[in-house]
Amino acid sequence: MPMLGDVVELSVVVRNLEAAIERYTTLFGLEVHKRGESKEFGFVNAILPTGIGHIELLQPTDPDKPVGKFLARHGEGVYLVGFECTDIPGAVGRLREQGVQVDARRPDIAWVHPRAAHGLFVELRGRERYQ
Amino acid sequence: MPMLGDVVELSVVVRNLEAAIERYTTLFGLEVHKRGESKEFGFVNAILPTGIGHIELLQPTDPDKPVGKFLARHGEGVYLVGFECTDIPGAVGRLREQGVQVDARRPDIAWVHPRAAHGLFVELRGRERYQ
Repeated sequence: MPMLGDVVELSVVVRNLEAAIERYTTLFGLEVHKRGESKEFGFVNAILPTGIGHIELLQPTDPDKPVGKFLARHGEGVYLVGFECTDIPGAVGRLREQGVQVDARRPDIAWVHPRAAHGLFVELRGRERYQ
Repeated sequence: MPMLGDVVELSVVVRNLEAAIERYTTLFGLEVHKRGESKEFGFVNAILPTGIGHIELLQPTDPDKPVGKFLARHGEGVYLVGFECTDIPGAVGRLREQGVQVDARRPDIAWVHPRAAHGLFVELRGRERYQ
């Protein structure tokens, strides 16, 4: 079975979270399920469920942290993609055996450095059930 | 029902298609389902099914066409995201009523300009069945 299952998260970096929420809800008929903030990674966010997964809108709050650096370098757009993975510890082990840089501080989520996958920032995660 | 359903396509622009295929198959255990080429949009590609959808790896063949321009401007990374949409003509109508630029030359697929969604290039499409 491949390591990457369904796409269940799509994180989009935006300059202005409120403007983006207004746009995504009006244009696409999505709804905000919850909002959050990460001081560690330097962003505020909103989760908008779509199908089996969700879109996460991210606004950086610190230009020196990864999300802020991404916005400065690439502009607005897709920052990270979360794939359902049924065996995260096993996947992390196989990736590390191949010399890939993986951040796996928790057993239920792992981040694969975008350098490993030609600019695709892969998150391995479970599936949240919104319905 | 929201306009955007499950994410069923993730298009990643890469500099070197063969190197990216080697990477994605080795690292993530994916397989190439088919390859293609578009002279109109200026790329060669490979489709690698993952879960209910697929990853499309795209290498530009013409720096003056959209995929080549994206690579020059943003570097390697996610170019386009395809969402399952059960009523494409209806969605196209609602988007155009809101002044959004939509390319809908065929009834089964439509592209929403990334300017409309904060850098997210949205494709509305059906779901292909690989299994």
